[in-house]
Amino acid sequence: MASTSPDRVTAALLVIGDEILSGRTKDKNIGYIAEYLTAVGIDLREVRVVSDDESAIIEAVNALRHRNTYLFTTGGIGPTHDDITADCVAKALGVDISHDPRAVAMLKERYANPDDLNEARLRMARIPHGAELIENPISKAPGFMAGNVIVMAGVPAIMQAMLEGVMPKLKVGKTMVSVSIDSGGLPEGAYATGLGEVQKAHAGVIIGSYPHFDGQRFINQIVLRSRDETLLENAKKAVSDLISQLKSNAM
Amino acid sequence: MASTSPDRVTAALLVIGDEILSGRTKDKNIGYIAEYLTAVGIDLREVRVVSDDESAIIEAVNALRHRNTYLFTTGGIGPTHDDITADCVAKALGVDISHDPRAVAMLKERYANPDDLNEARLRMARIPHGAELIENPISKAPGFMAGNVIVMAGVPAIMQAMLEGVMPKLKVGKTMVSVSIDSGGLPEGAYATGLGEVQKAHAGVIIGSYPHFDGQRFINQIVLRSRDETLLENAKKAVSDLISQLKSNAM
Repeated sequence: MASTSPDRVTAALLVIGDEILSGRTKDKNIGYIAEYLTAVGIDLREVRVVSDDESAIIEAVNALRHRNTYLFTTGGIGPTHDDITADCVAKALGVDISHDPRAVAMLKERYANPDDLNEARLRMARIPHGAELIENPISKAPGFMAGNVIVMAGVPAIMQAMLEGVMPKLKVGKTMVSVSIDSGGLPEGAYATGLGEVQKAHAGVIIGSYPHFDGQRFINQIVLRSRDETLLENAKKAVSDLISQLKSNAM
Repeated sequence: MASTSPDRVTAALLVIGDEILSGRTKDKNIGYIAEYLTAVGIDLREVRVVSDDESAIIEAVNALRHRNTYLFTTGGIGPTHDDITADCVAKALGVDISHDPRAVAMLKERYANPDDLNEARLRMARIPHGAELIENPISKAPGFMAGNVIVMAGVPAIMQAMLEGVMPKLKVGKTMVSVSIDSGGLPEGAYATGLGEVQKAHAGVIIGSYPHFDGQRFINQIVLRSRDETLLENAKKAVSDLISQLKSNAM
């Protein structure tokens, strides 16, 4: 990480693409980005998925970029007519967009024959003015960071490389540490009241209860998250004590 | 389906849960619901993921319910303190919420011993006034439909059963039909200009190009979608002709 800050750093993610909303393509980027950002100390606060529609994209970009440290986008930066993300981001930010010589040079690495670097492919070098490029080690066409908006490809392997590439330029906050406690077979309803009391008594720790249904029965995990390890440790003890006590009562 | 309508029926989906945004849980509901709604003729237009935060949930519910025929939500209807979806939906709709006798009766089927139906579990019977219940064949605690807001569990197996259960009550539009054409090895940049021209000439058909990277190379699918089979057939022919022509040029 290039820089760290004790302040809270937040992010939103905008997934762009008809194919996600039609169910044809199953998104693999939300979970990856959520886990990645959490690990580096950036709080992902909201995700939106919108179609390849100019007004929907611009509305979402403007709603999300203003209230978060960063807005990440995935999808819509290829060479075809439905790839409109770069133009929409430029409009949302109110900046011009044109072929960026640095991006054109990157494409020339891939399309050495000038005939191959046709108009459609050159569209991938259209970059909002003032943006920093994000390298694409796989297929060269770059992503970019315009203001606090980080525009990445939708193809997971390329998105992942771009995320890795842009990260040193971003500020990150204090990492959220989490611990997970198995309820040991206790159903949620048996510990819900006690867990609510533990949550009330432990500000600075976020406590959640997550049931997983394996087809036969529920397996419940209680997850505690905090930026303060002492607070987390205290809350963890309180939850563990609660579960132990309820289990011994149940015997 | 109970009723069909030639009009366009749209939906939004709101996924509620810290665990999705932290990356701890990988969402499995977005893709399932997207595919399901598309198959029955409901256009999923937007998805949002928000945390277990009252103001975030209420803001999203109100933004999405007003501009879509239906708003589906997943998550946050269990017995623990972080399950606040029902209360937030009631607040967003401006209706009261209290223990619903029908929902209490459902819970009694599961918790036959009155001691087991404790205060925390009874929270799962809190239903906004005027809502219709959606049965939960797996763990009994129901979902509900309040106005045009359809509130479902986050656990995939339960959500899927609830979606199945509520569907006969919903109106659906004319089904979007889609065809997929493999680019036959042609890269996107080779057909992007031609495909854009085909799109311009075929209103009523939505054409998208979707690259998949297999770790070595891109495999591209061109997907055409329409509610009119004749328009779809014409556009399909135009795309097939384009691809054939480009491939023979490339030989």
